[in-house]
Amino acid sequence: MFFASDNWAGAHPAIARSLVEAANGFASAYGTSDLDKRVEKTFSEIFERDVAVFFVGTGTAANSLALASFNRPGGQVFCHREAHVNVDECNAPEFFATGSKLVPIDGPAGKIAPDALAATIGRFPPDFVHGGQPMAVTITQATEAGTAYSLDEISALSDVTKQTGLPLHMDGARFANALVHLGATPAEMTWKRGVDILSFGGTKNGCWCAEALVLFDPGKARQMHYLRKRSAQLFSKSRFIAAQFDAYFRDDLWLDLARHSNAMAKRLAAGFTASGTARLAWPTGSNELFAIIRNDAIKALREKGATFYDWPAGPALKASMREDETLIRLVTSFATSEADVDGFLSAL
Amino acid sequence: MFFASDNWAGAHPAIARSLVEAANGFASAYGTSDLDKRVEKTFSEIFERDVAVFFVGTGTAANSLALASFNRPGGQVFCHREAHVNVDECNAPEFFATGSKLVPIDGPAGKIAPDALAATIGRFPPDFVHGGQPMAVTITQATEAGTAYSLDEISALSDVTKQTGLPLHMDGARFANALVHLGATPAEMTWKRGVDILSFGGTKNGCWCAEALVLFDPGKARQMHYLRKRSAQLFSKSRFIAAQFDAYFRDDLWLDLARHSNAMAKRLAAGFTASGTARLAWPTGSNELFAIIRNDAIKALREKGATFYDWPAGPALKASMREDETLIRLVTSFATSEADVDGFLSAL
Amino acid sequence: MFFASDNWAGAHPAIARSLVEAANGFASAYGTSDLDKRVEKTFSEIFERDVAVFFVGTGTAANSLALASFNRPGGQVFCHREAHVNVDECNAPEFFATGSKLVPIDGPAGKIAPDALAATIGRFPPDFVHGGQPMAVTITQATEAGTAYSLDEISALSDVTKQTGLPLHMDGARFANALVHLGATPAEMTWKRGVDILSFGGTKNGCWCAEALVLFDPGKARQMHYLRKRSAQLFSKSRFIAAQFDAYFRDDLWLDLARHSNAMAKRLAAGFTASGTARLAWPTGSNELFAIIRNDAIKALREKGATFYDWPAGPALKASMREDETLIRLVTSFATSEADVDGFLSAL
Amino acid sequence: MFFASDNWAGAHPAIARSLVEAANGFASAYGTSDLDKRVEKTFSEIFERDVAVFFVGTGTAANSLALASFNRPGGQVFCHREAHVNVDECNAPEFFATGSKLVPIDGPAGKIAPDALAATIGRFPPDFVHGGQPMAVTITQATEAGTAYSLDEISALSDVTKQTGLPLHMDGARFANALVHLGATPAEMTWKRGVDILSFGGTKNGCWCAEALVLFDPGKARQMHYLRKRSAQLFSKSRFIAAQFDAYFRDDLWLDLARHSNAMAKRLAAGFTASGTARLAWPTGSNELFAIIRNDAIKALREKGATFYDWPAGPALKASMREDETLIRLVTSFATSEADVDGFLSAL
Repeated sequence: MFFASDNWAGAHPAIARSLVEAANGFASAYGTSDLDKRVEKTFSEIFERDVAVFFVGTGTAANSLALASFNRPGGQVFCHREAHVNVDECNAPEFFATGSKLVPIDGPAGKIAPDALAATIGRFPPDFVHGGQPMAVTITQATEAGTAYSLDEISALSDVTKQTGLPLHMDGARFANALVHLGATPAEMTWKRGVDILSFGGTKNGCWCAEALVLFDPGKARQMHYLRKRSAQLFSKSRFIAAQFDAYFRDDLWLDLARHSNAMAKRLAAGFTASGTARLAWPTGSNELFAIIRNDAIKALREKGATFYDWPAGPALKASMREDETLIRLVTSFATSEADVDGFLSAL
Repeated sequence: MFFASDNWAGAHPAIARSLVEAANGFASAYGTSDLDKRVEKTFSEIFERDVAVFFVGTGTAANSLALASFNRPGGQVFCHREAHVNVDECNAPEFFATGSKLVPIDGPAGKIAPDALAATIGRFPPDFVHGGQPMAVTITQATEAGTAYSLDEISALSDVTKQTGLPLHMDGARFANALVHLGATPAEMTWKRGVDILSFGGTKNGCWCAEALVLFDPGKARQMHYLRKRSAQLFSKSRFIAAQFDAYFRDDLWLDLARHSNAMAKRLAAGFTASGTARLAWPTGSNELFAIIRNDAIKALREKGATFYDWPAGPALKASMREDETLIRLVTSFATSEADVDGFLSAL
Repeated sequence: MFFASDNWAGAHPAIARSLVEAANGFASAYGTSDLDKRVEKTFSEIFERDVAVFFVGTGTAANSLALASFNRPGGQVFCHREAHVNVDECNAPEFFATGSKLVPIDGPAGKIAPDALAATIGRFPPDFVHGGQPMAVTITQATEAGTAYSLDEISALSDVTKQTGLPLHMDGARFANALVHLGATPAEMTWKRGVDILSFGGTKNGCWCAEALVLFDPGKARQMHYLRKRSAQLFSKSRFIAAQFDAYFRDDLWLDLARHSNAMAKRLAAGFTASGTARLAWPTGSNELFAIIRNDAIKALREKGATFYDWPAGPALKASMREDETLIRLVTSFATSEADVDGFLSAL
Repeated sequence: MFFASDNWAGAHPAIARSLVEAANGFASAYGTSDLDKRVEKTFSEIFERDVAVFFVGTGTAANSLALASFNRPGGQVFCHREAHVNVDECNAPEFFATGSKLVPIDGPAGKIAPDALAATIGRFPPDFVHGGQPMAVTITQATEAGTAYSLDEISALSDVTKQTGLPLHMDGARFANALVHLGATPAEMTWKRGVDILSFGGTKNGCWCAEALVLFDPGKARQMHYLRKRSAQLFSKSRFIAAQFDAYFRDDLWLDLARHSNAMAKRLAAGFTASGTARLAWPTGSNELFAIIRNDAIKALREKGATFYDWPAGPALKASMREDETLIRLVTSFATSEADVDGFLSAL
């Protein structure tokens, strides 16, 4: 009953095996091997256009490099207050994009509203040098609240970024989970809706360590080579990432894994709703679930071996909670079984 | 006949298999799993003292974090002119240790001489604020010239660092190769000779992606946790590195692999010396070989499919070379076979 | 009727004359002249203890260097949401203290409340590496709202910083104005109440360009020399700042100038209150005045040549304002005359 | 007999007086006053084209901002080994242009030779990501050796920068001295010969504190506003710099002062040559003089109260010196009198 995080799972057997198969033989290093090139092409096929792909080691690296590629002196990056870049990356974004600042925006269910975004950007008028200058917008899909922006919601945000001349970054640590939830294509959920650059995560969805930065503007690729290398993210045996993605994409494994973990989250959600002792904070749009639950139930669950985290509730949510309730987060993964879920629910 | 680099090899089968075995089950993330903890303890056993260990993704990350942990405003880092940190890391050291500078020192066979080190440090007297201040010394073992510092040579350098109050970093991208060449223990080649912090490389010696920063001063560990995370080098499924090192150290696999690649380099060296058409630039102290060779021989070798790099020769070496000669570098690895070497030599 | 800012004034004649007097003769450069040394001693006398003093060119430089001297990876600096460092310095603090972050705290009248400070610091528990680590607290005295912290309020904040092991910085761009308002001594308003480092401003109070960083912990002085130089803030003819401070402190000129500008602000305040068309947002504790005023009155004042800025009102204040009202800021200076004030009030 | 540095002098009376005159009255801040605007126009007149001008506080700030405006990840800046940016700015250039590196080039008499520049740039081939990428070239005029590049020498260097697509920066800390030495116009010594950006120094030539960054490409101006502010170099009472430049340019004062200090250096040079106990290291092209002199003569001069610095001699120069000789530097200024020079020479 491990629901602490999807990164508590290991790797899917097909992905681990792919590393064994690629281990033999010699190949040129630093991302120039045939396997690297082939997997890069797969990205272009999946996204239905020529994209520039950069393998990196962590989601934090992908996010920070994406923002760094747009860096400006006095640069302001607009994000949700609960965004991973803002609260969980130990200032890596500010470090990679030296001297930049994250400007948090509040919004229910982990989402930025277009009018809040426009109003916040508007606080930095052109040529008021003291306040700095807008530099980029970043959203997370699926969000840190386990919800997913609809395609129209993404469009509404990119309308604002286009009007203000800002690039739009998507943190896709749980890209696949949002994708299968919406039933959209990768192209539809990104560049067709105005996303300029994407952190494409594989690690949380069954890889050991496979993250990629996807640039829909190939003109940014030249400098990204240098940005990545000087950030110590260019792997000599880059094949070890390519081999993971190779298995990840083969026969739509990645979509199957995401569908499975989403289904496990939905099964949990249904059980919560039916239980009477807990209720969902928001509808689930991925493999993350946030529930308001009685403290005695939490205690009982943990005594039976369930792992999950308490989560800080925002002011609005808090106001709707009783004294003896707590917000908790549960995350499912490719490795979560129905038995795990049912065991948890019967313990509840 | 692949002698371009040891990072053209894949991974040793035992190491790839270890990733398969670790793929099952759940474990806590970000370096806190039992496997992570167990492998960290192995490091302490190997180094015969309590060390703090930080897994990272690349040698560049290990080097840059090591230097960043000693950062000072106006900081000067002393290194060999041909050091990897100076010529092959795209300014990552300067980026991680913001505002620092690498001060290159010349020296034959890839080694810094103690008196040259002392003299160069002396150019930055205390409190001459304009010139900045000394911050750290870094040496590479085995060196970028394929040689290895003797234990006494390391002591002589650390005498200088102690006198000047500077920390001594060792870039051990090819640590194992130097170690078995000297027949020393890990403790003898590091902290017993005054090394304060070590970049311990596994990737070039048979791992997919396994590098570790080893701190002999545990007092630096607390800040290193933050330095690593904000550099995007904290892996969620950190086990995938731990699992590689687990296999690497089991039954001294790492030493066997290094012995093998060193032996292949020596076999090449003997063949070169016997050939008459080439001579060694320096004696080989690891798995790297630098040879001065006739241009027509280079052409012939490449036509037969051999891969290796031309290498820039320093002024002293150049003066000893004829017009129709070139300096080349050959690197062997765990995957190099005797047949590869003999094929190369017969082609020569 | 210039009330836009105290930096719209020029320099007090005594200060400009001091620059003429110092212009003759030779003196050693970079802060080592007799005049520099003598003025540094004056600082120690004024603060009743040995302090380390660093002249710099701007208040932004003083603030940013102060925070940079405490920099840590993933460092979080706690400040008021409206703090100058947060909204008016174009990310200079984040740039000087590379990779750090400002964490804004709300509070009425420009002040941070101790419990809000403690709660915000508490969001960064020790060793939760993802969130970064607390690094420093900065307060502004007088505040950006024109108010002044009482001595006890400063103590209450430094109680929190001591309990959490954090240094306390004071942005004293309008130090003298708060000082004479409280009737305190410089020592009482700083180190005796737990302040560790001070940005001491002279420019807004009658100097051309004279700012100083005052370190109550001399142990930080050595590295500050390098921090200042590498930030391009070490002036060769540093005497030109020393000469200004020399005149500034002579015969308590600085206190007289602050008393004058405060008195002008109080005269304005009294006029506002008596007018019926405007009311003060907060009581005035310096030479800044924030008033809620009818839009038609604003228009009339500007038509008569008055200069001042509209100011953004926070949510609480906004709720207390009518549709046809605006928050404005007025700043007086050493150069503001009673006639200016009375002219303005009669126009009102 | 003060020959230690031109920054040991104070300020020319006309410049100090200008500060007194500008002290009265109110004016808008942060470089927007009428005086600021008028002096900016004077720069355009002097340089015979529209230039963007940014006042800053120190030469180090001007140099570092210039290079930062061209920053690239892994960026390499090419400069002379003895360049002020390389040896006297405490890594400020590396700090402002985060993660960049200075690549020193040797050359006699403080000058970079075009072929050495081309060869050094050539060591960083396009797309060899490990080595980083060329970013800018910087030269100093007059040089740190007291010489001046001829106009044709500048052209020869800018031919290389144009061929390699790099911007050319000129550190003009002693711009006026080189200018009057060559008898050239400001336009001829800069943009007409391919210079893209200039650090224009006033401080060493009679100002208190007046430096300007001159951009011949106005397209860079927008970002420079932010770069300057986030570097804490935007002065609120910016008039205090404008007022100095106003007097500096009036009636060609700046050229007169430079002619005077150059003449004093030439008088010294002639005396040295005639003395028999000393010889010049290089011909003098500004107000700096480098002489090889017997150690006993140095001792005698210092006993008589002369101030000047010993200077490190490069290998080539050292080879031409006797054991009992030392290289010294003497610098004259607007405040150096003939009596000072003659006193020194008679002491010699």
